Amino acid sequence: MTTDYASYLEAHRAEHLEQLKALLRYPSISTDPAHRTDVLQCAEFLAAHLREIGLEHVELLPTGGHPVVYADWLHAAGAPTVIVYGHYDVQPVDPLHFWTTPPFEPDIRDGRLYARGASDDKGPTFMHLKAFEALLQTEGALPVNVKLCIEGEEEIGSAHLPAFLERNQDRFRGDLLVISDTTMYGPGQPSVCYGLRGLAALQVDLRTVNRDLHSGIYGGAAPNAIHALTELLASMHDKAGRVLVEGFYDDVQPLTDEERRAYQQLDLKETDYAKALGLNGADDLVGEPEFSVLERVWARPTLEINGIYGGFEGEGTKTVIPAEAHAKITCRLVPNQDPQKILDLLEKHIAAHTPTGAHVTVQRMDTGNPYVTAFDHPAIQLAAEAYTHAYGVRAVFTRMGGSIPIVETFDRLLGLPAVLIGFGLDTENFHAPNEHFHLDNFDKGLRTLCYYWKALPKAMEAS
Amino acid sequence: MTTDYASYLEAHRAEHLEQLKALLRYPSISTDPAHRTDVLQCAEFLAAHLREIGLEHVELLPTGGHPVVYADWLHAAGAPTVIVYGHYDVQPVDPLHFWTTPPFEPDIRDGRLYARGASDDKGPTFMHLKAFEALLQTEGALPVNVKLCIEGEEEIGSAHLPAFLERNQDRFRGDLLVISDTTMYGPGQPSVCYGLRGLAALQVDLRTVNRDLHSGIYGGAAPNAIHALTELLASMHDKAGRVLVEGFYDDVQPLTDEERRAYQQLDLKETDYAKALGLNGADDLVGEPEFSVLERVWARPTLEINGIYGGFEGEGTKTVIPAEAHAKITCRLVPNQDPQKILDLLEKHIAAHTPTGAHVTVQRMDTGNPYVTAFDHPAIQLAAEAYTHAYGVRAVFTRMGGSIPIVETFDRLLGLPAVLIGFGLDTENFHAPNEHFHLDNFDKGLRTLCYYWKALPKAMEAS
Repeated sequence: MTTDYASYLEAHRAEHLEQLKALLRYPSISTDPAHRTDVLQCAEFLAAHLREIGLEHVELLPTGGHPVVYADWLHAAGAPTVIVYGHYDVQPVDPLHFWTTPPFEPDIRDGRLYARGASDDKGPTFMHLKAFEALLQTEGALPVNVKLCIEGEEEIGSAHLPAFLERNQDRFRGDLLVISDTTMYGPGQPSVCYGLRGLAALQVDLRTVNRDLHSGIYGGAAPNAIHALTELLASMHDKAGRVLVEGFYDDVQPLTDEERRAYQQLDLKETDYAKALGLNGADDLVGEPEFSVLERVWARPTLEINGIYGGFEGEGTKTVIPAEAHAKITCRLVPNQDPQKILDLLEKHIAAHTPTGAHVTVQRMDTGNPYVTAFDHPAIQLAAEAYTHAYGVRAVFTRMGGSIPIVETFDRLLGLPAVLIGFGLDTENFHAPNEHFHLDNFDKGLRTLCYYWKALPKAMEAS
Repeated sequence: MTTDYASYLEAHRAEHLEQLKALLRYPSISTDPAHRTDVLQCAEFLAAHLREIGLEHVELLPTGGHPVVYADWLHAAGAPTVIVYGHYDVQPVDPLHFWTTPPFEPDIRDGRLYARGASDDKGPTFMHLKAFEALLQTEGALPVNVKLCIEGEEEIGSAHLPAFLERNQDRFRGDLLVISDTTMYGPGQPSVCYGLRGLAALQVDLRTVNRDLHSGIYGGAAPNAIHALTELLASMHDKAGRVLVEGFYDDVQPLTDEERRAYQQLDLKETDYAKALGLNGADDLVGEPEFSVLERVWARPTLEINGIYGGFEGEGTKTVIPAEAHAKITCRLVPNQDPQKILDLLEKHIAAHTPTGAHVTVQRMDTGNPYVTAFDHPAIQLAAEAYTHAYGVRAVFTRMGGSIPIVETFDRLLGLPAVLIGFGLDTENFHAPNEHFHLDNFDKGLRTLCYYWKALPKAMEAS
């Protein structure tokens, strides 16, 4: 106990990165049954490491799917209890040929650590372990009580986690939920995320005639499933990009004036944003013109067609009138919207706009509730302060356009406010080839976390 | 020479069907390089059989692709010379598991011969051989001069045939082209086809952003390629099914009053037609409401989307904003429409209707000119008489919605009127599993052909 956490982290940096590389070598792809053993071995590696750094009651808890890695440290009498959530499973890696170095052979280049899971979410999850280790090694104790919930199914929709949490409510009681699985506003610009969009998904299966037909014989009279589907789908947006499903925006909780002002101050350059996407300029962006780009992606609901298929996809031509065609749709939802109600509205729209000769079947799929927390909560304000301490710039408050359904589940079941204190960047190719993590954020992020834990008891007292 | 052709055909029926089965056993799939030898062996089988029945100058003529089987018989001094066209190549057979008996193991059930190519076009082509054989065996000579052109690339668009015919114009001079590769109006209802639609095909490749995007991060602002494509495609038809491409119908040669009356007399039951396609009734059919169903499929141009694909097609959901999406389009054209001009109009429409943020590349693909011949030509009127003789019912005159581009090529290069005297039925699953041919039409068709050849010299004299 002769040094402070910052010196400790600096002194052990190389060793910590080797440990992270070891974690990244497990191909813990949760969606693929062929990797079941890899996922389990990855969980066991994490458990062993948690024991090594001094956490207690370490165990793999069964969920019905891949296990949750649990650990705790509960000796901070009188201090708050914090649940730290993360995940050790990763996305699939195809197309493999786009990777410069193999996804499960971690490689450091240009200050970035390349590997599947480096950014999402093994890197940030591992940082929590190293922050606890640094505090235990330098101060002999943690300033707060912690309970870790590191799951293995985040990339497959956390299918078993809600039921698992319901069964384990007592185990996970606490005062606060902390997650590092969001991204920062930009390089060098830390941000506290206080809102997430929800999700409502469905598949549209459209059929017209009873078999694929020869366009020479029947063309001109028989209803073509692709014509019907494109007409139906085109009815869902106006030319600007507004969703035309009746009632779609009815329940949206409007942004406060304070939020709109805060987003304006972020001063997003829409032209640069468009150009980074390969577009000619801001005029090529779509969406509700009465909202700024940040408002659209963080605080407005969307309806996206994620996939479409029907008829002939091969080389050349085939003069077929396809009998069926399909589309996959997901909506991103914002606070106060109910996924089931949105799916009801979509089904109603589809029924009302199905063209002549067509019959549509709708399959309802994943849903997740939107989430927003008051950003004046002291634990959230403290996150901004911790970032500012480590990064030397003022942290901003953002929402995120994506969904982490489990945040809403924790809130609903356990009443925990969530602090989303992320260290990744949107450009780090999570879910794509060449995923990587900036080591600059590994270093600054560790100092952010240590600062945060040390200051949390006092901040929570004030609440 | 003790009998007439009808008795000869009856006496040799079993033997003829065994020969046809032998022809059908060759898997002469022209599109598949793995079957190149099978295609060649099929051509050699045909050539050997042509020699056996007494035709002359039999040879395989090189085309640059699969060979043309040539044969002639030119001893009918003073009589017309007829080019008989057919094809010995067949469509692929997948999906194989839908076949009740294997596609290249011919099987007779319920008066139908099941095999790939039985209806399209080995069966009808083989009938010409047997008609010539019957006449040679019973009368010692043919009443007309004949030249056979049996190609091996019809199912891949007759790619090499136009250049082959240009090089071989002298060889194929004659007075008339006869083809049995069309279908009859219905079971027991023979029909002479006097018009074919043409074809113009293109592929649309649409791109918005420079990579697939995460719908959580960019959803609401980034242009989605599927949204853009569905909007673009939906602009091509009105709700009734009329094509909205400007100028699309401008050059269409209207039906004559006589043709409209003739189609009305065919008295198509639109409700039955719709029900046979699995629809609830005639209201579920689409197309230009001011034309009858037969007019739409025979004499009006169409624009069909034959395939569409983009984004995620797997199980479940993927919250992606796709960067690209694709569609395949073919137009069926009618007399006086020019395929290249139609493709120009389509490109212009696409350029004018490409949504914000999207960029479209158009690939022009196959084209074929429409064809129509005066149905008062004596050789065509005689075809109706021959049918009526063999079937005992009055033949009708129809157009066909499909395309046989080579008919137009023969007409343009060699100035030959074409007689399309078919024996297949639309229900015989050509291009699909369980292709078959009704043996009733094999028998009556052979008598139709023999009658036709015998009567042709006198009919042509009258012209």
